[in-house]
Amino acid sequence: MKKLKETVKNILCPGARVMEEAQRKLDNLTKPRGSLGRLEEFACRVAGITGSISPSVKNKVIFTMAGDHGVACQGVSLYPQEVTAQMVYNFLNGGAGVNVLARHIGSRVVVVDAGIAGDIKTASPIFIGKKVARGTKDFTRGAAMSREEAARSLEAGIEAFEEEDKKERIDIIGLGEMGIANTTAASAITSCITGAAPDETAGRGTGIDDKHLKIKIETIKKALKVNKPDRKDPLDVLSKVGGFEIGALAGLVLAAGARKVPVVVDGFITASAALIASEVSPLVRGYLFASHDSVEKGHAVALKWMRLKPMFDFQMRLGEGTGACLGISMIEAGVKVLNEMATFESAGVSREER
Amino acid sequence: MKKLKETVKNILCPGARVMEEAQRKLDNLTKPRGSLGRLEEFACRVAGITGSISPSVKNKVIFTMAGDHGVACQGVSLYPQEVTAQMVYNFLNGGAGVNVLARHIGSRVVVVDAGIAGDIKTASPIFIGKKVARGTKDFTRGAAMSREEAARSLEAGIEAFEEEDKKERIDIIGLGEMGIANTTAASAITSCITGAAPDETAGRGTGIDDKHLKIKIETIKKALKVNKPDRKDPLDVLSKVGGFEIGALAGLVLAAGARKVPVVVDGFITASAALIASEVSPLVRGYLFASHDSVEKGHAVALKWMRLKPMFDFQMRLGEGTGACLGISMIEAGVKVLNEMATFESAGVSREER
Repeated sequence: MKKLKETVKNILCPGARVMEEAQRKLDNLTKPRGSLGRLEEFACRVAGITGSISPSVKNKVIFTMAGDHGVACQGVSLYPQEVTAQMVYNFLNGGAGVNVLARHIGSRVVVVDAGIAGDIKTASPIFIGKKVARGTKDFTRGAAMSREEAARSLEAGIEAFEEEDKKERIDIIGLGEMGIANTTAASAITSCITGAAPDETAGRGTGIDDKHLKIKIETIKKALKVNKPDRKDPLDVLSKVGGFEIGALAGLVLAAGARKVPVVVDGFITASAALIASEVSPLVRGYLFASHDSVEKGHAVALKWMRLKPMFDFQMRLGEGTGACLGISMIEAGVKVLNEMATFESAGVSREER
Repeated sequence: MKKLKETVKNILCPGARVMEEAQRKLDNLTKPRGSLGRLEEFACRVAGITGSISPSVKNKVIFTMAGDHGVACQGVSLYPQEVTAQMVYNFLNGGAGVNVLARHIGSRVVVVDAGIAGDIKTASPIFIGKKVARGTKDFTRGAAMSREEAARSLEAGIEAFEEEDKKERIDIIGLGEMGIANTTAASAITSCITGAAPDETAGRGTGIDDKHLKIKIETIKKALKVNKPDRKDPLDVLSKVGGFEIGALAGLVLAAGARKVPVVVDGFITASAALIASEVSPLVRGYLFASHDSVEKGHAVALKWMRLKPMFDFQMRLGEGTGACLGISMIEAGVKVLNEMATFESAGVSREER
């Protein structure tokens, strides 16, 4: 727990003064004041986070973290559990949605095994092995993992960030995940922390029908009843109804906050990880950006709880970090406006008359 | 009018069969069906437009077209008319918002003088001179331009497209504009064509106060009363309450449609140009993509009329093509998904079980 405590201690509030300074810089550029709307907001927030009015968002990393879930045996997903590992190989081979979109925005993808059931046999340089255990236990019959495992999953995420950051200083990260049945865990976490009923946080995941959605909601209700997670204790919530990739993502968020790096949330599962992180350290919310508003209805519940406003709604529900990629590109656009646009003076353009 | 007629004749409905084929291709990729939402929609539409299930969106061009407006003398804008030409130099020097965002998405910017009051002295290779006249006339006292000038502005846009396309075959275009007071013209066009009242289509443009917004609304009402444009005759609407850059943009849209090139609309002014184009040829709507929903309230009115759903609302109101840049990047993301993702078979990933 030492690494976790140290990380949390290093998370400070983003600099309000630098944000104001960035806005003044923006107001001097050749455009009506505020006319680039949220792009200006993104630029100011990155300035505040990084402490620079000329921030860099060059070195981008999508961390796609994978883990398996014992609850998959309850029939809450359309896909068999093997798909988690199969998709990890797809990530490593560059053929998945997140790989395509990461290439599109000039980002690397780093794949983390936080707790996949099977072994991942690879020598890929983009793979980080941080397996806490071979999948969680079925949380309808008791805790998904021990409290110690929950803490280890958080530290696994912190370590993954630090290892990548050491290779090349990271400017911005996107959260991504893979784990068959992990929307069930995300719903349980979100219901527990926000108090929203399971039928307000459970969606169709990869595409289950009405019958299986009902099973999923009952499964979440049972999990909360059996485990009675303490909503004031994020480690308790994570251990009882969470997942290893969710814990590792929460740790990743904390590590990024401690290193003053902006964090872009993807879909519902990563939002539930951000919820855990922001319960551990409320200050970390200042480092979070929401990208899309996904089809999973619990996503909006989690974002609202963290007061994050999504950038767009493309009716996406793939996860992996696909939405985060698009969000990072928007943030980069805002930062480039701040860094590259001409001023009224340098361009010889007249200012407003009134 | 010969060029215009020929162009319109060449606009065909995008291919429904190719769109279906593209969706089948998408359904075979390693993701739950439909889980990339609107990215899949963009990809299918580009497939239908281009007639290819592996379309290219490499050669991107933002056409930023500029013109002056006689109505500027009515106090409808916060900026003096000289700013149109000043900003054109800023575009040519690469310092404006659209330059920054075009570079971000790997697009060229082409700047067109469709009717600026002053001369643009430049040897820039990204400049195209197509001046129809030195600004429109004040349309509160009669038509903004003659019917012949309106037709010439449309052909100016067609020519601009053809000249650029000849240099290097264009894959996708974004619409952009600059013209002090052109939101007033856009409101008049939109009110005329859609029947919405001027107070439903007039916004604050570059940032006018309540007093000047009232003046602007009265100006639009007067323009419609004095000129009585015939909403069934888009050339009449354009000549009476339009602008040269708006006409040229409408021509550009038609030329792109005729060459099966997707067109990304920017803000309110470019939407009013798309309105004109889609009144000239309703089939051209099949080539249009809306990017953002701008602060200008007439924008939503125009998009709704064309049944275009914007991608995002960033509270932007700069114009120039800035929103179109971000929209193009999203469409490119969708097309790359279609082109680059692995199939279930090639990646060895199990399919859904039910």
